[in-house]
This record gives sequence, structure tokens and C-alpha cells, in this order.
Amino acid sequence: MSHRAPKAKTANRLVVLGGEGVREAGSVWLVGAGPGDPELLTLKAFRVLATADVVVHDGLVSDEILDLAPAAARRISVAKRKSRHSYAQDEINRMLVAFALEGLTVVRLKGGDPFIFGRGGEELAACRAAGLDAQVVPGVTAALAASASAGAPLTHRGAAQSVTFVTGHAAHGEPDLDWPALARVNQTVVIYMGLTTAGLIAQRLTEAGRAPATPALIVVNASRADEQRLPTTLGQLADVAAGLSGPALLMVGEAMALAQANEIPDAILARVSA
Amino acid sequence: MSHRAPKAKTANRLVVLGGEGVREAGSVWLVGAGPGDPELLTLKAFRVLATADVVVHDGLVSDEILDLAPAAARRISVAKRKSRHSYAQDEINRMLVAFALEGLTVVRLKGGDPFIFGRGGEELAACRAAGLDAQVVPGVTAALAASASAGAPLTHRGAAQSVTFVTGHAAHGEPDLDWPALARVNQTVVIYMGLTTAGLIAQRLTEAGRAPATPALIVVNASRADEQRLPTTLGQLADVAAGLSGPALLMVGEAMALAQANEIPDAILARVSA
Repeated sequence: MSHRAPKAKTANRLVVLGGEGVREAGSVWLVGAGPGDPELLTLKAFRVLATADVVVHDGLVSDEILDLAPAAARRISVAKRKSRHSYAQDEINRMLVAFALEGLTVVRLKGGDPFIFGRGGEELAACRAAGLDAQVVPGVTAALAASASAGAPLTHRGAAQSVTFVTGHAAHGEPDLDWPALARVNQTVVIYMGLTTAGLIAQRLTEAGRAPATPALIVVNASRADEQRLPTTLGQLADVAAGLSGPALLMVGEAMALAQANEIPDAILARVSA
Repeated sequence: MSHRAPKAKTANRLVVLGGEGVREAGSVWLVGAGPGDPELLTLKAFRVLATADVVVHDGLVSDEILDLAPAAARRISVAKRKSRHSYAQDEINRMLVAFALEGLTVVRLKGGDPFIFGRGGEELAACRAAGLDAQVVPGVTAALAASASAGAPLTHRGAAQSVTFVTGHAAHGEPDLDWPALARVNQTVVIYMGLTTAGLIAQRLTEAGRAPATPALIVVNASRADEQRLPTTLGQLADVAAGLSGPALLMVGEAMALAQANEIPDAILARVSA
């Protein structure tokens, strides 16, 4: 047992929900910051952020958005880093709980939506276990922003009757995905964090029967000023992905035929046409 | 050829993008209004709505949100109605184009996100075919709001490695869905517009191997003041759905075990426990 547990219990007894009593514990808000463009914050996220005593944020959350918190609010980045210490999920959970038990209003600000590949469920569970009042504010997940700016619908009559979001992140060498299901026609598959595994993903989908000519789209930095939209095909996906970096989505499906490029760097064009 | 085609051509020639020339044609914005709570509008949707000359909206868009458009803006409901004339999609497409060709700023305001079961792709295609400047503003789709308020993540370590959005709407008697794929464990399946086909959906998923004990959640009127969250199981889904009405989501998957109810009407409790 850590020394924090009895404190949590005490605070918990003092929380009076909906009543007029003393309220000593603070609160935790798990807030979706949307895909990047500050204008794609919700009005609610905007309002809640302005009440923060502490903002615990991902690396994907831009300075423009962080500036919307009060100047006096403490800002803590828990960005994943390769070169130096990263916070483990467990440390983040404990941090949120500890600040709230000090009576602070804690905003956990996450790129996109807290409940789509955001590990918000784990943070919410930690707050609940500590008896804290925690609320979730949904956000525009990156796939919605990418499809909006490309003009390529995620569902579309005769082209995509469903849409699936998966992650290309591979904990054990290869993403553990249901390739035959994802290879079916008439659906859109959006792969978050799939840039480094794009070749493998394209290969598995093709082996499972998805045609190499299936339209695809890569969107890097969706909704940001430096957004790149690269329409391609499943067969060319790995070539187009190679050399790209930054937060990216791979989108595969017939409806991606409607996608409009904004920029295809010469280096990529050269590689694809080589 | 309609008499409108030559007009479109003329207008098209006069559109000067990024220049200083005369701009005669208006513009079309396909805007996601989010799930219902006006606070779940994005800042961008809020800004664009305030520029509207005409708002063409679904029945799901609340009066509170419509009030954010200028008082002088014309409001046109194209809600689906059973008892009287409904606009066909084709009529809506032509309406958007016709207003924009008159030089108006047209906001097509849709519940949720325009590109998730919103038929936004068809409207965008019609605008593009008329040579119009059309842009899409993404919105918080209902599934994100429902999972946020229930505290049940759509993806969750060890419980849901992916999430799929499908529609339960059946054009020909039965939804045309990939039941074996949807019946796999370790994923969340969200069925939009599935209330009337809940029994069939539960039966097909169970036949395809999904355990009747799989956690499920029904959310009616997500994010609105009258939101109802009903945690249940796949085996009980049809019983809980019976008698509910309004815009609803069925959500099936292990992560729905984390969902918190807000209210279970006595009538439903009685039916389920009978």
C-alpha cells in the first residue's frame, strides 16, 4: 500500500455529489483535444480547459491548444519519447489521481478522442478506483478530420457500408488483426499509427484477398497547417508511406477513390512512379 | 438538360479561388453538428454556422443548435418523416447546389459527423459536379459521445483492439453485414439505427459465435438532456431495446462492461427480469 491510499479514502468520504456539502477532492476531466486544428475543439473542451489547474497532455496536443488553458495552470507533457524518460501509463494514472486528491481540477488532454486508441479507459478506471469524480469529453478523432478534409467519406452508398478503426502499432512484431475481415470489400478500414507497419499491413490485406487496386489514402498531420493528403492504392501504400513521418492515418477502401490530394512531394512521386 | 446547367457553367467560370476577382457563386459547407448537446459542436462548426444564409438540416439537429445561425438565415428541415413528404437525397443535393449558385452561403447541418452514415459523400459529389466550392467540417459522431458519457471506451487494452461502426438499417429486410467478422471477440461493434432490428442483430451475432454474455450498451439520445444509457448483454439486447424509441446506438463488446447506467425505466426492468 502506498501512503496515498488512506488519503484517497478520506477525500472520498468528503465528496458530496449533488449536495451542498464541502467538496475537498478535485475532479478529473478526460478531454479530447481533437485532431490538431484548435478550431476542431468542441465548445465543451474549450470551456473545461479554461477551468484547469493542471493540464496533463500528450505530445500531439499543439501549443495553440495548450494556450487556451489559464496562464497559471501547470502544464505537464506525458508525450511518448524515444530518447528520454517516458511516463508509463501507470505513472500517468497515479499522477491524475494525486492531483485531484489535492483538490485540483485536472484536465487530461488527449489528441483526438479519449476513447479511440487514447487509453482513456485505463485512466478513467484509475480515477473511479480512487473514488474520484471523472468525466469524459469526446473529441473529433483524427479519422473524421482526415476524411473531411480529403472529401472522402468513411461510409458511402455502394462503396463503404461500414468503417473500422484499428491500430497498426505492433506490440509483438506484427499487429494482431483480423485480416480476412478487414480485407472484405465495401468497407473503409482506418489504421491509426500504421506508418511504420504500412508494408506489412498492405501485404496481409492483399494476401487476405483485398485487391491491390483498392483506393487508399494516407493523411499525415490531419487538420494541421502541414497536413498532407496522399491518395494512392493498397498496392502502392508501402511505397507512399516510406519516408513519411509524423502522426498519420492509413485509410483503405473503395470510398477513398473520392479523396483529393493537397500535395504530393516530388520525392514521393518519384519513388511511386519509379 | 435542366435550365440550371448553363447557369452552373457561368457561375463556375466566375468563381475566383484565392484571387481578388468577383465571386458570384456561393459556397456549401457540410457541417457535423455533433450528437445533440450544443456544447459538442466544434468551434469551427459554431463559426461557420454563424455565416449561413441558408441552413439545410436534419431532424436530429436541435433548436438550440439552429438558434446559433443568424436570425435572418433561412432554415429548411429535410428530416425523414414517415407521415408526410420527405425529401429524397437527390432533391437535397439539388437544393444545396441551387442555393449556392444563387450566391448564398449554404450550411448543410447534419447530426454527428457528415461522413459517418450521413450521406455527406453524395452531397459533396453533387457540389463538385456543379463546380462548387464545398467544404466539410467534421463532427463528434454519436458513438464517441455515447461512450464518453457511459465511461465505456470504444478501444481498451485487452478488451477491444478495434471498433467498427455499422448501420442496422435494413434496406431489404435484413442488414447486409459480415456477421462472422462482427462476432469476433476483443472488439467493439457500434450499430447506428439498430433499435428496430436489435433482435435480428443479436441473433445473427450469437449464431456467428459471439457469446450471449458479451457486455452491451444501448444509448438513446446520446449527449442530450434526455439521454438514456442501458447497460445489458448481447443475450438481453432485444428485450432491452423493445419499447425504446428515438435515435439510438447499440454497442456490443467486452469494453462495454465498464459502462455506467444513468436510468433504467421500470417498464424495461420489469420486462428484462420477467
